[in-house]
Amino acid sequence: MAVNNDDVKLIGAWASPYVMRPRVALNIKSVDYEFLQEQFGSKSELLLKSNPVHKKIPVLLHNGKPICESSIIVEYIDEVWSSSPSILPSDPHNRALARFWAAYLDEKVRAAPRAATEEAKSAAVSQLKEGMALLEGAYGEMSKGKDFFGGERIGFLDIAFGSMLGWLRAVQVMLGGVKLLDEEETPGLVKWADKFSADPAVKDVLPETEKLLEFAKILMAKAKPAAS
Amino acid sequence: MAVNNDDVKLIGAWASPYVMRPRVALNIKSVDYEFLQEQFGSKSELLLKSNPVHKKIPVLLHNGKPICESSIIVEYIDEVWSSSPSILPSDPHNRALARFWAAYLDEKVRAAPRAATEEAKSAAVSQLKEGMALLEGAYGEMSKGKDFFGGERIGFLDIAFGSMLGWLRAVQVMLGGVKLLDEEETPGLVKWADKFSADPAVKDVLPETEKLLEFAKILMAKAKPAAS
Repeated sequence: MAVNNDDVKLIGAWASPYVMRPRVALNIKSVDYEFLQEQFGSKSELLLKSNPVHKKIPVLLHNGKPICESSIIVEYIDEVWSSSPSILPSDPHNRALARFWAAYLDEKVRAAPRAATEEAKSAAVSQLKEGMALLEGAYGEMSKGKDFFGGERIGFLDIAFGSMLGWLRAVQVMLGGVKLLDEEETPGLVKWADKFSADPAVKDVLPETEKLLEFAKILMAKAKPAAS
Repeated sequence: MAVNNDDVKLIGAWASPYVMRPRVALNIKSVDYEFLQEQFGSKSELLLKSNPVHKKIPVLLHNGKPICESSIIVEYIDEVWSSSPSILPSDPHNRALARFWAAYLDEKVRAAPRAATEEAKSAAVSQLKEGMALLEGAYGEMSKGKDFFGGERIGFLDIAFGSMLGWLRAVQVMLGGVKLLDEEETPGLVKWADKFSADPAVKDVLPETEKLLEFAKILMAKAKPAAS
């Protein structure tokens, strides 16, 4: 399956939606890579050296050269392995739309899980629901009756949004069954989420909801101050 | 000079660094466009209809189709008018670097002017100076002895950063002469800023520092609560 003789490594962690983006992109391109997992709570020397500005995962190491920031890595992968299926749409206007909604997700959805109080949680849920309604509209416009935002195949926005699905499902459970995606309000996205999750490029790298819920418990326990 | 028979309009405002980005890009591509200026403090029907999600300038209208978000618009312009000088570097790794630093600027520099207290201002200046030092390093790496981040010609990161120069200079004055760019600490960027400001694609759209200072006074006066 591999199309490359290059040295490709990805610094990441299994639970990160941002790390999932380049993993799906590399799968679409059939690029073999070594997955270097960071330990939670510490940062490796390699990570600090490879992304000295943000010190964050994911980092792609391509023949030793580091590329940082999940969406920038996905564009890089699309440009370097250009003979395999395209990830960005070919039409400039569709590319702009895909980039617009991916940036929207990064801005609006990334902030939501940090809500600490009940009031902040309720505001975060409203904001997420508003976002999903907008994305339902964008899905109708961009998919044109096909399965994905990218049309017949998974594209840039599918990857950006789809990589958040594991945590979206976990958050629904953590919030006591709130439906962020549902048959009534976002029927297109419900269908899309099933298709995305089952895709060969995705299914082995999308974390299971149960595992994320366990991981979230560990995170929250560590965040609490020690009893004194 | 015009290379297009297309209908190109840009919704913007003269003082906005984000609006300046597509203006420089359109100049580089020798694309004629109509500049539709928003009035400060209100939003036109056209803007609300064209960017219903963020309701923000700039918006490019290309044959009636809206494209939003300054960096996305610049990439769109580069892709649509591809026979004119390129804005993004051709090498994927250099493209990733340009996108990385442009995203860094949007994240770090955009937040700085909102500082309200003296303490916050001092923290903002430190952060800006740290950012300038990092960009000095990136300039050395990317320009390879040429004038611009993009090499011999203005490129994507030149546009992203250079469009902030007017406000950077105004902020230096407003902060009582703080030097964010200076000969000692960022000699490369001082030289770069002069070359950028004098470029034919830039000089007529880069706002004068004096005009920005006047505009800032008006903004601050409006932000104060009315005397009662």
